[in-house]
Amino acid sequence: MLTNATWQKIPLQPIYDIAWAAVDGKVYTLWKDVLDSWLPRAKWITLHASEEKKSLSTLRYLWKKLYQQQIARDQPIAAIGGGTILDTVGFAAATYKRGIPWHAVPTTLLAQVDAAWGGKTGINFRQTKNLLGAFHMPEQVWVFQDFLQTLPDRQRKSGFAEMLKHALLDSPQSWDQIQALSPTTIPSLATLQQAALFKIHVCEQDPHEKDRRSLLNLGHTLGHAWEMLSHKTSMPVTHGEAVAMGIATELYLSVEKGYLRAGTFEQILQALHRWGYLLPLPPFTYKQLAKLLWQDKKVFAHQLRIVALYDIGQPAGLIPITWHEVQKAVRWYRTSPWCA
Amino acid sequence: MLTNATWQKIPLQPIYDIAWAAVDGKVYTLWKDVLDSWLPRAKWITLHASEEKKSLSTLRYLWKKLYQQQIARDQPIAAIGGGTILDTVGFAAATYKRGIPWHAVPTTLLAQVDAAWGGKTGINFRQTKNLLGAFHMPEQVWVFQDFLQTLPDRQRKSGFAEMLKHALLDSPQSWDQIQALSPTTIPSLATLQQAALFKIHVCEQDPHEKDRRSLLNLGHTLGHAWEMLSHKTSMPVTHGEAVAMGIATELYLSVEKGYLRAGTFEQILQALHRWGYLLPLPPFTYKQLAKLLWQDKKVFAHQLRIVALYDIGQPAGLIPITWHEVQKAVRWYRTSPWCA
Repeated sequence: MLTNATWQKIPLQPIYDIAWAAVDGKVYTLWKDVLDSWLPRAKWITLHASEEKKSLSTLRYLWKKLYQQQIARDQPIAAIGGGTILDTVGFAAATYKRGIPWHAVPTTLLAQVDAAWGGKTGINFRQTKNLLGAFHMPEQVWVFQDFLQTLPDRQRKSGFAEMLKHALLDSPQSWDQIQALSPTTIPSLATLQQAALFKIHVCEQDPHEKDRRSLLNLGHTLGHAWEMLSHKTSMPVTHGEAVAMGIATELYLSVEKGYLRAGTFEQILQALHRWGYLLPLPPFTYKQLAKLLWQDKKVFAHQLRIVALYDIGQPAGLIPITWHEVQKAVRWYRTSPWCA
Repeated sequence: MLTNATWQKIPLQPIYDIAWAAVDGKVYTLWKDVLDSWLPRAKWITLHASEEKKSLSTLRYLWKKLYQQQIARDQPIAAIGGGTILDTVGFAAATYKRGIPWHAVPTTLLAQVDAAWGGKTGINFRQTKNLLGAFHMPEQVWVFQDFLQTLPDRQRKSGFAEMLKHALLDSPQSWDQIQALSPTTIPSLATLQQAALFKIHVCEQDPHEKDRRSLLNLGHTLGHAWEMLSHKTSMPVTHGEAVAMGIATELYLSVEKGYLRAGTFEQILQALHRWGYLLPLPPFTYKQLAKLLWQDKKVFAHQLRIVALYDIGQPAGLIPITWHEVQKAVRWYRTSPWCA
């Protein structure tokens, strides 16, 4: 096992050895009594959760707070919130005194099934998602399903996109199961665990993403670009929405390049459309898009790369794509009847 | 082996796969022709080597440059300089795209026998040495003894302090050998390698400093404090000078606490005095000193810690010390006939 995991209902047994906790301000407002009695000795730091705040200035603020509290190298800290909070606080833990232990407490669906697992931490820099970061496994992940009750529908839908990504990579059975679900209802504990366990198993096989773990990037080469571009507009999409649009545009290339059958692709598009994921692409120039894509961490040997599928449950790994193919996928998406 | 090491004389075989190199500006001026022909494809970034520049602003500058050069996750970069350069550039490599490969090219004696080995990277923050950092092993360490020819005497003396520390930890034979040397002459290749290999072996046994590696901190609990305090004055001491003063004050406590015989301590002090290491302590208030010491990475379970010796070549590991003992060591140092 990569990390200790606890799946639990509230109320919680108090934990006395956590002296410092960084928490999403909204979550703290909603769950203050529960959290205060769970971590009775913690000094609380509230953060604003957003892609914009997943920044060097937030990281610097966290470092300063850790310093001021004189947190020692053996003192665990806690991060409580969605993916942006866990990534930023986890990166602070990874780099403070060359790494202190941390507990991850995911409060969004996305973080419970994805971001809290596998030890990737980081911040955005120069408009590039997760350009700076480190691998630093949490000592413990606490999943409290109750938090999902106060999560807005759109955030549930965002997390559901990573669940459907896991199902596409996992097996036809998982894909069939997920098709029976709605992206905005709270999944059962079993469904949550199944989605998280898929990621946990992949990360166990390849913790530092030398090989198999890169499969989890399905939809994320183009999806990260859609996400960052939309954040320059007045209508930012969520991470999950961007990933779903990334899955659509990337799987189009899986078909074009002869990996995936067109019929299977249509079936996937139909589901994405039904769930309301196929939003218009944000406005961009090809120059802007190229600049973002060339900073992708999956670029190596001077090639852009995406995850391709042979079939549902049969990923083909990272394949190189050309800039010409990216443009073709954009043109297809913009004129496809499935896409808004 | 933790890392690939090459010990070589100039001229060097060109290396074509390094596209980006950060170098101490002084070294680049002195060795430009050699370096340009060694890394013919490198984009050069020059840095100013100092404790003050081992900072977040330098790190941010390096991240920006890596971004602008679109360095991919599989592209190795090079760091060429002394400990401050290797630490800062190594930390940039550790955190850019969650870790890219890097080559360490130590150009000072201190870096050749110590800082380049073992994968510790980091920067100073809030007046605390190496408060932020990561473990990130270089893919390759290149030791070119020739660089020592252009190194100022005081910098050679700084590196020699880490050599004598390694000898004290290693064996009476090593200590006898080092006593025959002068701190400002260029050591033979065999002496250099012996000093480096001691550290390499310790780090191999314990790469993330869970246990044995902490021995290498002999002189560094108090030494870091002397170093940081002196940097607030017009007469900063070098890292090596501060470590030697740290060894003196810490070994005093080894004697006080019954680990080390007084006669052995006298013999060590005599050598440190003869080599000119026992400089006056910088001015400070006990409040300032306490604040620095409590940020030390060896603080755990709320205890300050130093490395103690039973005898030369027989380290006793990390032992807890009280604040009262720190004050006693300061008073002893200030009134000792050995100390300036």
